[in-house]
Amino acid sequence: MKKRSIDLNSDMGEGFGPWTIGDGVDAEIMPLISSANIATGFHAGDPNIMARTVQSAKEAGVGVGAHPGFRDLVGFGRRTITESPQALVNDIVFQLGALREFARLANVGVQHVKPHGALYMLAARDEELSRCLIGTLQKIDPSLLLYCMESSVTYQVAREMGQPVVREFYADRDYDASGSIVFTRRVGRLDAAQVAAKVLRACVEGRVTTVEGGEINIDFDSVCIHSDTPGALELVQATRDTLIRHDIRIAAPQPAFPQ
Amino acid sequence: MKKRSIDLNSDMGEGFGPWTIGDGVDAEIMPLISSANIATGFHAGDPNIMARTVQSAKEAGVGVGAHPGFRDLVGFGRRTITESPQALVNDIVFQLGALREFARLANVGVQHVKPHGALYMLAARDEELSRCLIGTLQKIDPSLLLYCMESSVTYQVAREMGQPVVREFYADRDYDASGSIVFTRRVGRLDAAQVAAKVLRACVEGRVTTVEGGEINIDFDSVCIHSDTPGALELVQATRDTLIRHDIRIAAPQPAFPQ
Amino acid sequence: MKKRSIDLNSDMGEGFGPWTIGDGVDAEIMPLISSANIATGFHAGDPNIMARTVQSAKEAGVGVGAHPGFRDLVGFGRRTITESPQALVNDIVFQLGALREFARLANVGVQHVKPHGALYMLAARDEELSRCLIGTLQKIDPSLLLYCMESSVTYQVAREMGQPVVREFYADRDYDASGSIVFTRRVGRLDAAQVAAKVLRACVEGRVTTVEGGEINIDFDSVCIHSDTPGALELVQATRDTLIRHDIRIAAPQPAFPQ
Amino acid sequence: MKKRSIDLNSDMGEGFGPWTIGDGVDAEIMPLISSANIATGFHAGDPNIMARTVQSAKEAGVGVGAHPGFRDLVGFGRRTITESPQALVNDIVFQLGALREFARLANVGVQHVKPHGALYMLAARDEELSRCLIGTLQKIDPSLLLYCMESSVTYQVAREMGQPVVREFYADRDYDASGSIVFTRRVGRLDAAQVAAKVLRACVEGRVTTVEGGEINIDFDSVCIHSDTPGALELVQATRDTLIRHDIRIAAPQPAFPQ
Repeated sequence: MKKRSIDLNSDMGEGFGPWTIGDGVDAEIMPLISSANIATGFHAGDPNIMARTVQSAKEAGVGVGAHPGFRDLVGFGRRTITESPQALVNDIVFQLGALREFARLANVGVQHVKPHGALYMLAARDEELSRCLIGTLQKIDPSLLLYCMESSVTYQVAREMGQPVVREFYADRDYDASGSIVFTRRVGRLDAAQVAAKVLRACVEGRVTTVEGGEINIDFDSVCIHSDTPGALELVQATRDTLIRHDIRIAAPQPAFPQ
Repeated sequence: MKKRSIDLNSDMGEGFGPWTIGDGVDAEIMPLISSANIATGFHAGDPNIMARTVQSAKEAGVGVGAHPGFRDLVGFGRRTITESPQALVNDIVFQLGALREFARLANVGVQHVKPHGALYMLAARDEELSRCLIGTLQKIDPSLLLYCMESSVTYQVAREMGQPVVREFYADRDYDASGSIVFTRRVGRLDAAQVAAKVLRACVEGRVTTVEGGEINIDFDSVCIHSDTPGALELVQATRDTLIRHDIRIAAPQPAFPQ
Repeated sequence: MKKRSIDLNSDMGEGFGPWTIGDGVDAEIMPLISSANIATGFHAGDPNIMARTVQSAKEAGVGVGAHPGFRDLVGFGRRTITESPQALVNDIVFQLGALREFARLANVGVQHVKPHGALYMLAARDEELSRCLIGTLQKIDPSLLLYCMESSVTYQVAREMGQPVVREFYADRDYDASGSIVFTRRVGRLDAAQVAAKVLRACVEGRVTTVEGGEINIDFDSVCIHSDTPGALELVQATRDTLIRHDIRIAAPQPAFPQ
Repeated sequence: MKKRSIDLNSDMGEGFGPWTIGDGVDAEIMPLISSANIATGFHAGDPNIMARTVQSAKEAGVGVGAHPGFRDLVGFGRRTITESPQALVNDIVFQLGALREFARLANVGVQHVKPHGALYMLAARDEELSRCLIGTLQKIDPSLLLYCMESSVTYQVAREMGQPVVREFYADRDYDASGSIVFTRRVGRLDAAQVAAKVLRACVEGRVTTVEGGEINIDFDSVCIHSDTPGALELVQATRDTLIRHDIRIAAPQPAFPQ
């Protein structure tokens, strides 16, 4: 059951004002991916960057997604803030709307939403937050794809409530035996060939090696490579090339359900 | 040519986090007006307040408008920031979209946009900014009503470009001979009966006394009373009562053009 | 062992830009207290407010203290943010220095530091944070009084490391059997006479009733009344009057140690 | 009247949270300069970066200065904000104090203050702001060196009021016939040898070529090279090497007056 096509997603537009993130290679990465998670201002991103990034995604034919985070520029949305689910979902609604307006201006649709960093991880383990988020999405846009991990509570709740999801595989993160990624603040430089090989194997065999040294089955609809990982452009390029060489197309995601 | 109905608009939701503005009487003012300019987060307003204020406007049958300002919480959007028109319009697009998403969630439309404070005044005198803003509105929502003063450049450009506008009369500000309002940071407590009489006369005779002591003709489609003016509730109540007593209905705005 | 004098502290300057907190009665409360915890910009407070509040404290002969919080205006510093102790202490150093400069400008010293809200509560239970904070205070100002609860880890570490502390009694919060205050987001209107009686009894008998219905011994060097509690002015006035009537002076704190 | 020693200053610590500025080469530039203008949080800089940068300056034996800007992260302090002189000086006091506390923690003094970007340029032409700033500096630290241009109002007022100043020569900016620098948002990559030659000539002959093609006399006590200019490290290195080769030492500034 080797995959014949896979979505490749990356966070885009994660600068702020005068600052760019990582190697500053958004423009080079954009044409290589199929879905862009565009920062929406709370952990990164500002209106000028959002306008430019949406336009760049449109020109590259890349799916536009909202990438909302905690309101925490200084912490880049990687710090958890204790807050009620409803207030966090209001933050997401705000950010999603902001992005949608730039998409509307560029005459392109919003394909998906993917919470960022600590907010993504919080939703992954907090049923009330996932339920509040998905209930809200169903009111404002029931066809919006929600990116999450198959091992997350978010996935369970979305399946129950019928929101279409895209399950992610993290090319530049390690997995543990539970199928969760090991969240780290700083990621060192990775070997591009190894990352590409890991993704290829996951696509072909549905297997990945864990930090404990074992193996787990994994299924997913999209491969994520973070654009602020050092050497990100090389990772994306190598992964893309390797997949294509093995007859796996990089293409818009097929949601896990409904089918 | 006495008016038979007039729109009554007020800024709503101009708190932030734990803070409320003015007398904190949004909930009391809302049922008395016909259009609410809802703060969209840059000069005031946060996602929780926006959600609540949109809901409150909906319940009162009040038209929902976006009230975007400069990115300047500490200055409450009353300080001018030197910036390119395109960047300022990107700020407005961001804020408009954020509000629109809360409106969508509440299943209510967005009726109008009214820039706040120094941004409103800057657009009123800056043709390039007005042109950039209106050109953008025409791409994302050509039917969105734009609130402005008849004496402004914004009005001239909107008429030229065909964006529907609502001309405002400021009940709690003074006018000069040019028909412009005299912008002040702090407004003292005003006499409610005098304010109501001034509005009534403007509605019936189309005349207002200026700070220089003369008189000017004035035409408008909406009366604005600021909710952070001390005693705002009393001003709104007295104005509304006086107008109704003289057979002038408080109702959604009729745009000046197109007709 | 009835107290003959007690410190009365309150948070001051917790507005931001156009906004004031609670009933907006800082100016009325200031002359009634002996120590002011002045907000330092991260959860509330801005440079103009800080300058004004330091001046107001000086004129009233009230001790000036820094009241640093989490960087979280929208949450008013009442949300916990996961962060390393060292980074949180850097936040405190930044805020303490900002206040100290306004004190220097007003030619008045900084008497104490009291972390705000969730940061105070986090330090109270997190030994590493308390140790990092106190170690830093000892480098920059070993005589600075640190406000905390006797039941806190902060108190234990300060005693061990020799930083002078002022133990607080919370007039407008409830205690549980462990001697901790029950942290709540919103406090309803309290009866001023009851609050004053509770403080008086704590000062005279060293006893307080808990939420569980029992009683505990309590010792303290300062009584805190929050200025954003509804009716705060009345609470402070009643407490002050009651204490004075019973021959307990309101005066600068005597640190618990060193003695 | 060739100079025998000159101060070399650069802006340091102008990142924020996850972001670095320019080429991210602060650590490489620090040992090559004699004075560091350390960003203090309003246009760039955060408590962690400030702590690290002060430490780095101390280790390199570089003079520590405060580099306060407008409260405008997204605009990097390069946008002018209309505000009263007193409020802007309060912003500066806040930022200066924050830096001073990190200096105190590192057991090093604060040598100078240099406003950033648009605030520096505003002070240069606004006598009331310069007067308010210098009057305040004289209250809190009369020996603090104030960096400015000899062509500025700031310089005139400081000389009149007796605050010691350091006059700057901008290696990476162009001059016009009035002796003012031409303020530009984006600076392209400059030729390091040409920049070094321009600085050398200014140090030896006291002359610089203007954008109009003429020449002007120029006198100064410090050479500024911006760390966010592309290729900044190369510019600093070439300038330093060229000066040293011509027997001009890089050393702490000698204030223009008092002497």
